[in-house]
Amino acid sequence: MSLTGPALLHITGTTRLYLVVGDPIRQIRSTELFNRLAAEGGHDAVFVPLQLPSEQLKAAVPVLRSCPNLAGIIATIPHKPALLNLVDQASEQARLVGAVNAIRRDSDGRWIGEIFDGEGYLNGLLDCGVEPAGKSALVVGTGGAGCAVAVSLARRGVNRLCLVDTDDDKVESLVRRLRSAFPSLDIRRGSSDPSGFDIVTNATPLGMRATDPLPLDADKLTAGQVVADMIMAPPVTPLLSQARATCCTVVEGHKALLGQAMAISRFFGMEPARS
Amino acid sequence: MSLTGPALLHITGTTRLYLVVGDPIRQIRSTELFNRLAAEGGHDAVFVPLQLPSEQLKAAVPVLRSCPNLAGIIATIPHKPALLNLVDQASEQARLVGAVNAIRRDSDGRWIGEIFDGEGYLNGLLDCGVEPAGKSALVVGTGGAGCAVAVSLARRGVNRLCLVDTDDDKVESLVRRLRSAFPSLDIRRGSSDPSGFDIVTNATPLGMRATDPLPLDADKLTAGQVVADMIMAPPVTPLLSQARATCCTVVEGHKALLGQAMAISRFFGMEPARS
Repeated sequence: MSLTGPALLHITGTTRLYLVVGDPIRQIRSTELFNRLAAEGGHDAVFVPLQLPSEQLKAAVPVLRSCPNLAGIIATIPHKPALLNLVDQASEQARLVGAVNAIRRDSDGRWIGEIFDGEGYLNGLLDCGVEPAGKSALVVGTGGAGCAVAVSLARRGVNRLCLVDTDDDKVESLVRRLRSAFPSLDIRRGSSDPSGFDIVTNATPLGMRATDPLPLDADKLTAGQVVADMIMAPPVTPLLSQARATCCTVVEGHKALLGQAMAISRFFGMEPARS
Repeated sequence: MSLTGPALLHITGTTRLYLVVGDPIRQIRSTELFNRLAAEGGHDAVFVPLQLPSEQLKAAVPVLRSCPNLAGIIATIPHKPALLNLVDQASEQARLVGAVNAIRRDSDGRWIGEIFDGEGYLNGLLDCGVEPAGKSALVVGTGGAGCAVAVSLARRGVNRLCLVDTDDDKVESLVRRLRSAFPSLDIRRGSSDPSGFDIVTNATPLGMRATDPLPLDADKLTAGQVVADMIMAPPVTPLLSQARATCCTVVEGHKALLGQAMAISRFFGMEPARS
């Protein structure tokens, strides 16, 4: 299935509404994918972006909760952490990451939160033939994306996990939370030197702009390492370009999209039609 | 153009969002028409129903105002009167009717309200070859629909306008407002006897259910009178059925839909592609 393109939609008073809330939102394209998954699966649902400023989130939640046809929310930047505290129930994984990116309204009206960023990333690895279980992994960046990646790698069973961030507090806090949740796993702070890691992941924004410095010492990459980037656009970042030239296995950020969208659709109770 | 059916929609972060707010909303089909008008006109816009309980309207307005991609609102029952007082500017017509059914966000962020129920009704008459100017008219029911019909008939230049309602206060209030706005027009309370009127309009809900009594003395209709019904479903109400049997000109409620939708689309800055 292609990730973009229009969907043939019947939008009426019976349609379940899913809002994709963020600020800014102009970059959002995932609604096309969600709408096509819904339409092709025969579901009476529509996904629509809503640009909601952060300072309005708290006021928006009771209003949105009162709307019976609002069946769910997909949260993007900057609302993922704040929404964790505004749902009625969140998974252990979401609490560990400290964020939700999908909220479902259950039949009793309760809001159930989950985070799928890590699952999307894992699907991207697996699609490229990479199984993280038993491997060593370096994650650069411990913001929202980095937390989700680190938690998913820990859950999947890597044998060594190193985390890097220029923000001492953020990386120390994540190391602490992960050690508490995965006491038998070797988790520590790392450096920007990727030497010796099976899987190296960039979870910083560095690489979105052509003028960005590289997020890690790409000169120290060696053939056979796996290098993943969480950046969606450009699809091939300077890091991935150099990794490919070094004969690393490269996992582009957009590889996460389809798998994550299908997982979120299932979370919303929509079984996707596989094409 | 058919009034229902799916539309091929690209919904992304640049799409202008129009919410159709009401409670209940399950009966809403107009979003299909608006979405097709937008898609066929090449506009990056989507119309989506939102079921918003009345008690949340006041809390919802500041939240919705803060969302830059929310380009407008179409109000349905029960929000039309309350929204009149929540917009920054409303037309003289909307203030006279006491309601808005469309709100546009202008480039400076102000909310501009307008009422199109009367324009839809007038388009329906004109489409059936009926010109109200210079005619006499009886309007039964002075709720939201009846007010809009009465105001549109007065503005169009009927020479005599009679209003009927079982609620004395409502009908007296509308008569007073119309007399003040149209001092040269003969406006008074009427009865449910349609004798002698060129145009007879049902603006009550009577006729939606098969067991409803007729809204007026249909036995007194005579050939050549125009009988219009504001009820959309069923398309042919018992009143219209009896009027047709009496060789009256019949104007079905749904005749208002396409004209009103095109007028609202233009109000939203979308020039519809005429097919």
